[in-house]
Amino acid sequence: MLTTVYLIAITAEAMSGALAAGRRNMDMFGVALIAFITALGGGTVRDILLGNFPVTWTQHPPYIYLTITAGLATMVLARFMHRLQQLFLILDAMGLIAFTIIGCNVALQLGYGLPVVIMAGIITGVFGGILRDILCNQTPQVLQHELYASVSLLVAGLYLLMRHFGVDEDITLLASFSTGLAMRLAAIRWHWSLPVFYYAPERWQN
Amino acid sequence: MLTTVYLIAITAEAMSGALAAGRRNMDMFGVALIAFITALGGGTVRDILLGNFPVTWTQHPPYIYLTITAGLATMVLARFMHRLQQLFLILDAMGLIAFTIIGCNVALQLGYGLPVVIMAGIITGVFGGILRDILCNQTPQVLQHELYASVSLLVAGLYLLMRHFGVDEDITLLASFSTGLAMRLAAIRWHWSLPVFYYAPERWQN
Amino acid sequence: MLTTVYLIAITAEAMSGALAAGRRNMDMFGVALIAFITALGGGTVRDILLGNFPVTWTQHPPYIYLTITAGLATMVLARFMHRLQQLFLILDAMGLIAFTIIGCNVALQLGYGLPVVIMAGIITGVFGGILRDILCNQTPQVLQHELYASVSLLVAGLYLLMRHFGVDEDITLLASFSTGLAMRLAAIRWHWSLPVFYYAPERWQN
Repeated sequence: MLTTVYLIAITAEAMSGALAAGRRNMDMFGVALIAFITALGGGTVRDILLGNFPVTWTQHPPYIYLTITAGLATMVLARFMHRLQQLFLILDAMGLIAFTIIGCNVALQLGYGLPVVIMAGIITGVFGGILRDILCNQTPQVLQHELYASVSLLVAGLYLLMRHFGVDEDITLLASFSTGLAMRLAAIRWHWSLPVFYYAPERWQN
Repeated sequence: MLTTVYLIAITAEAMSGALAAGRRNMDMFGVALIAFITALGGGTVRDILLGNFPVTWTQHPPYIYLTITAGLATMVLARFMHRLQQLFLILDAMGLIAFTIIGCNVALQLGYGLPVVIMAGIITGVFGGILRDILCNQTPQVLQHELYASVSLLVAGLYLLMRHFGVDEDITLLASFSTGLAMRLAAIRWHWSLPVFYYAPERWQN
Repeated sequence: MLTTVYLIAITAEAMSGALAAGRRNMDMFGVALIAFITALGGGTVRDILLGNFPVTWTQHPPYIYLTITAGLATMVLARFMHRLQQLFLILDAMGLIAFTIIGCNVALQLGYGLPVVIMAGIITGVFGGILRDILCNQTPQVLQHELYASVSLLVAGLYLLMRHFGVDEDITLLASFSTGLAMRLAAIRWHWSLPVFYYAPERWQN
C-alpha cells in the first residue's frame, strides 16, 4: 500500500514542480529537471545525509521515468489542472505523509537514533519542495505557509509511537495517514498556521 | 585529449563563474569560491549522488589552484573579455561536452544502469552553472535559455550509442564533440530553444 | 576548550539563522530549520564532501536540540537582542574560528592533503551562513561584506603552520583565536574588506 501511495505521491510532487517551473518560464528540460528534483529530492537529501548509498532512485529507473513524464505531461495538462486543485492538495498531503513514513523507516533500518529518525522523516517530506523553491529563486513556501512541515512532524511522532508499542503495521499506517490528512486539510480549510516570526530590527531600534 | 579539453573547460567555467560573481559585486573571496563551484560543482554533485568518494577534486589539488587562479585573474581581465565572447561560447560548449562524457564514464565505471549514466553526464555538464546561479540568487539560466542541457543529453546519447556498438574511442569522442559543438553553436546562432512552459494560472482561472 | 567554544558558537549561529528567518516572516518550523542549518550546515557540507559518514550531528543529538531550542528562543528574545549586537559579533567571530579549526582537524584525520584541509576549514566556517542566505533567498553575505571568509583562511593557515612546527596545542589554539578575533573585529570596526569585483559589462561595451 505504501508503495502505491508513494508512486502517486511522486507523480503529484513532480506535477507541482513542473507548475513552479512554468511560473518561471522554464523550457522543457528545466520543467523535467525541476519535476524530478521536487519528487525525488527529499529522499535524495535524506540518503546523502544518512550516508545511504546508492541513493534510492539510482536503483529504480521507473521513478526517474515516472517523474520526468509527469513533469512533461503537466506542460500540456496545466490548463485543465486548476479544476483539480482540491484533488492535488489531497495527493500532496498524502505524499507528504508517505514520504515522512518512508524516511523514518530508512533511518531506522540504518540504525540511527530517534531524533535523527524523526529528522529523516521530515527531510524526506519537505526537502523536495524546498529544493524546488530554491531552484525557482523563491523563499521556500513550506517554511512560511499553513501547517505543512508540522504535519510531517506529527505523522513521524505518531508512527514511531505506535510502532514502539507494537501496534499492527496496517493499523499504524491507517492511523498515520488519516490523522495527517485530517490535520493538513483542516489547516488548509481554516488557515491554521504555526506562530510566525516577524523580525524587522528597525521597529525596535528606532 | 579529454583531459586537455577538461582543463580548458574548467578554466572557462571558472571565468564564467567569476563574471557572475562580479555582477553581484562580490569580493575576491566570493569570486574565487563561485569560480571554484561553477567549474567543479557539477562533478562534485555527481560524485556525491553516485556515492563516489573521495570526491574527484579532493584528489587533484591542481584543479583547485587552476579554478581559483582563473577566477581571480578574471577580476583583472574582465574588461578585455567581452571582445572574446565568441571564444568563450565555444570553450563553454566544449566544456559542457567534455563534462558530459566524463560524467557518463564515471557512472559507467561504478556500474550504474543506463538512465543513471545519462543523468550523471547531464548533471556533470549543467550543475556547475546551476549552483553558480543559485549562489548569485538568480533563476538558473540553463533551465531557461537556448538549447544547452539538451546538447548534454544529445552528446550523452550519441557517446553511449557509439560506445555500445564498439566504435573506436577516438572516433566516438570526435563525433561527440563535433556534433555537440555544431548543435550548441547553431542553437546560439539561430536562437533554437526547447518549447518553453509559460504557466500563469490567472490566465485560465479568470 | 574547543568543545565549549563550539557549543557557544552553534548557539550563536542558530540565533543568527533564526533572525534571518524572521526577516522572511517564516513560521516556527522554518525558524527552527534555518537555525539548525545555519549552525550545523557548514559541518554537514564538509562531512559530505569529505565522505565522512555518519555526518557529525547525527551522532550528537544534543547539537540538534541545542540549535533548535536556540532558534525558537530567538523568536521571544529578538526584541532584546539588538542591545547585544556587540556580543553577537564576538560570538559569531569565535564560532567562525572554532568551526575552521574543527574543519581542518576532521580533514587531517581523514588523511586529506593540505589544500583540501584548508578548504574543509573554510567550508565548515562559512557554509552555514551561505546555506542560510540561499534558504532566505538572498545573495550570500559572506561573499560580499567585510573580511569574514578571509579570517577563516588566515586562521586555517596559522593553525596548520603552528601545528606543522609542533607548537603546543593550547598555545596554537590561543594564537589562532586571538589573531582571528582581532582581525575580524578590526575588519568590522574599520570596514576592512577585500577588493570587490564590480562587473557591469555594459560599461565597457558601449
